[in-house]
Amino acid sequence: MTRPRVVIVGGGFGGLAAAKALRKAPVDITLIDRRNHHLFQPLLYQVATAALSPGQIAQPIRSILRRQANATVLLDEVVGVDRARKHVIGRRAGEIPYDTLILATGATHAYFGHDEWAETAPGLKTLDDATAIRRRILEAFEQAELATDPAERESFLTFAVIGAGPTGVEMAGAIAELARHTLADDFRNIDPTSARVVLIEAGPRVLPAMPETLSAAAKAGLERLGVDVRLNLAVTGCFPDRVEAGATTLACRTIVWAAGVRASPVGAWLGADVALDRAGRVEVSGDLSLAGYPEIFVVGDAAHVVGPDGKQVPGIAPGAKQQGAYVAALIRARLEGRTLPAFRYVDRGNLATIGRGEAVVDLGWFRFKGFFAWVFWGLVHIFFLIDFHNRISVMFDWIWSYVSFGRNVRLITAGAGAPEPKQPPPAGEI
Amino acid sequence: MTRPRVVIVGGGFGGLAAAKALRKAPVDITLIDRRNHHLFQPLLYQVATAALSPGQIAQPIRSILRRQANATVLLDEVVGVDRARKHVIGRRAGEIPYDTLILATGATHAYFGHDEWAETAPGLKTLDDATAIRRRILEAFEQAELATDPAERESFLTFAVIGAGPTGVEMAGAIAELARHTLADDFRNIDPTSARVVLIEAGPRVLPAMPETLSAAAKAGLERLGVDVRLNLAVTGCFPDRVEAGATTLACRTIVWAAGVRASPVGAWLGADVALDRAGRVEVSGDLSLAGYPEIFVVGDAAHVVGPDGKQVPGIAPGAKQQGAYVAALIRARLEGRTLPAFRYVDRGNLATIGRGEAVVDLGWFRFKGFFAWVFWGLVHIFFLIDFHNRISVMFDWIWSYVSFGRNVRLITAGAGAPEPKQPPPAGEI
Repeated sequence: MTRPRVVIVGGGFGGLAAAKALRKAPVDITLIDRRNHHLFQPLLYQVATAALSPGQIAQPIRSILRRQANATVLLDEVVGVDRARKHVIGRRAGEIPYDTLILATGATHAYFGHDEWAETAPGLKTLDDATAIRRRILEAFEQAELATDPAERESFLTFAVIGAGPTGVEMAGAIAELARHTLADDFRNIDPTSARVVLIEAGPRVLPAMPETLSAAAKAGLERLGVDVRLNLAVTGCFPDRVEAGATTLACRTIVWAAGVRASPVGAWLGADVALDRAGRVEVSGDLSLAGYPEIFVVGDAAHVVGPDGKQVPGIAPGAKQQGAYVAALIRARLEGRTLPAFRYVDRGNLATIGRGEAVVDLGWFRFKGFFAWVFWGLVHIFFLIDFHNRISVMFDWIWSYVSFGRNVRLITAGAGAPEPKQPPPAGEI
Repeated sequence: MTRPRVVIVGGGFGGLAAAKALRKAPVDITLIDRRNHHLFQPLLYQVATAALSPGQIAQPIRSILRRQANATVLLDEVVGVDRARKHVIGRRAGEIPYDTLILATGATHAYFGHDEWAETAPGLKTLDDATAIRRRILEAFEQAELATDPAERESFLTFAVIGAGPTGVEMAGAIAELARHTLADDFRNIDPTSARVVLIEAGPRVLPAMPETLSAAAKAGLERLGVDVRLNLAVTGCFPDRVEAGATTLACRTIVWAAGVRASPVGAWLGADVALDRAGRVEVSGDLSLAGYPEIFVVGDAAHVVGPDGKQVPGIAPGAKQQGAYVAALIRARLEGRTLPAFRYVDRGNLATIGRGEAVVDLGWFRFKGFFAWVFWGLVHIFFLIDFHNRISVMFDWIWSYVSFGRNVRLITAGAGAPEPKQPPPAGEI
């Protein structure tokens, strides 16, 4: 007797939660991902700022599902879905048939129609993104050390972070700490503590998903670290030597993009008749299925999910996990001839860290900030890391960094080497 | 009063030992490296086989010399030396004048005139080499899992390591362990424990620098791990789908080159009148200086050093460190109007690990093998790691791996993604 085939595309929080929740279900699961590892994205900025190693926040998907006999992992890139014949198309494996399909492909950076900014303003979604940004940040200090022209030196010591959501806030804080603490004594010609970190946000406050009091606290925390927070400033151009925002220009050589995301190309796979929101997310029904296709589900950042309360589910890890688990429960219920009420997101809170000893936490029923919020943030993140080894290893590194002010992974790798000469930047002021 | 300028090119074992030994000397040191980190090369194979993270065996050179006020670190690539005008030429910084020059630029892979093999048979000298080899090894298992043709599957499960010096022996043992233990339960279509690791050596025994009894013990240890050790077999061709050695052909998709090194281009910088050995190493005088240029020293793998006993100093870390420290002592002696007797290498022993619980150690006065040799090997390597943080972190990971059989850094990164289809290999047998 063949068992129903559940194909899951994407091994992030949503896809993995679905696979794990189907552990005891009488189904055959195939999880397809084009990368071999599950990534703990909430700590990716720590890889980009040399605090953690890639291996500490990533885990091979195979190894996570090793003991789950009903799950097969396929390293392949999905290039299409045939809804009529019920199979997905893998670049390598070809047609992979399904009875139920879960699309959990996540999101990528969005440049609001300016994809040409991607080259100079890289975003942070994968481990390769993180090591590339790490290289750029560390190389900027090296270039500044070698620079002879004062304006050039200054532009290498200026870092722009665009977008003040959690990733932008955490990146800006971490770069400021890297400059002020870790690198403080390492150079002879420059003073790394003079580096300028500018956080540029088009909206009126940082961490817009947070209550206003915590946004204000986060802004104050960033400013104590020396971050220059510029609100209500919409970027109009990213160039190798500057950021432009309307009439203002910031001379800088390092730009990190944290301003927008766009869903992975699920919409294009499914066809023109599928409703997408502005960010390319698939608008799913209350049970997370595609209208007219009860056997196709979209979860996580690839889905636009509106709960029974009319609120959109935020694109964060707990949202994706709850959706993955819901779909798994619904599949099990259907196998037993039952159904389930619509998906309902349980908001367990919202947290972001600003820097050493500084975080903001909103649990809904309780809000706090400062040192205890920071410890809470750390414990929550360690708790949710998948692997016990990584939990101990990250905890050790964090305690070590706290005591020593050091960052352990200050490596310029991959395409690295001595910096090439660059032309001096134009005059500019922000 | 200007102090004598000592320029050191290369932040490996030799260059760093020289810089540190000049800590209290009345000189101004400039250490130039094209990479920002010192690398603990003896453990590089553990990065290539997913046991350690790059950050655990590398340390920013700046951070190592942070507290040494007379040392400046320059991230730059040296492209030439002007002996007459006494300066080195940096690609970015231009002319860098010296009173004393220490060239410690190490070695790179040598393909014995077949540089076209580099693409299919990468060597292991840098962190980027290591993560690239890690990617190839892990992707080979993924390709095997996807393969439908049995011969193709088998060729993806065949790994050739060329050269049976310490690196080759350690790589072969580590790949065998990865296949037999770590990956054993992770796949559904293939049995990773059926993977074949072939260690190919042109000479008559493995670890030729070791006494014959320990070579035999190492070979037996490798064979217990399932490694196919092929001696007296000279490779005549490396291709994407096979290794050729005379009339024999081995169908395999992953090749690691550990067969030969060539000195970095110091010889070319210095000019045609400088005597080089066959591997491109500079033949230096007894005090490690260049004949006719008492202010230019060459140390480590870039130098061909013959001791007063007529024996060539081996190209291993202790040799480079002792030479760096010797040159520093000689510079200090000269500043005091003294001189020193010729460099004499102190051989403290030779060790190599084969796998879990298996190593060979030759201390000259004492030889041993097996579990205690393995523990000794581990302690020695942890002791010589530069950074205290890394010592604890590596020790923790090793103990963890020993207990769990796991490898913590099984990441396919950088240019990664789903494997591309490849054509099937030709028939072949070795």
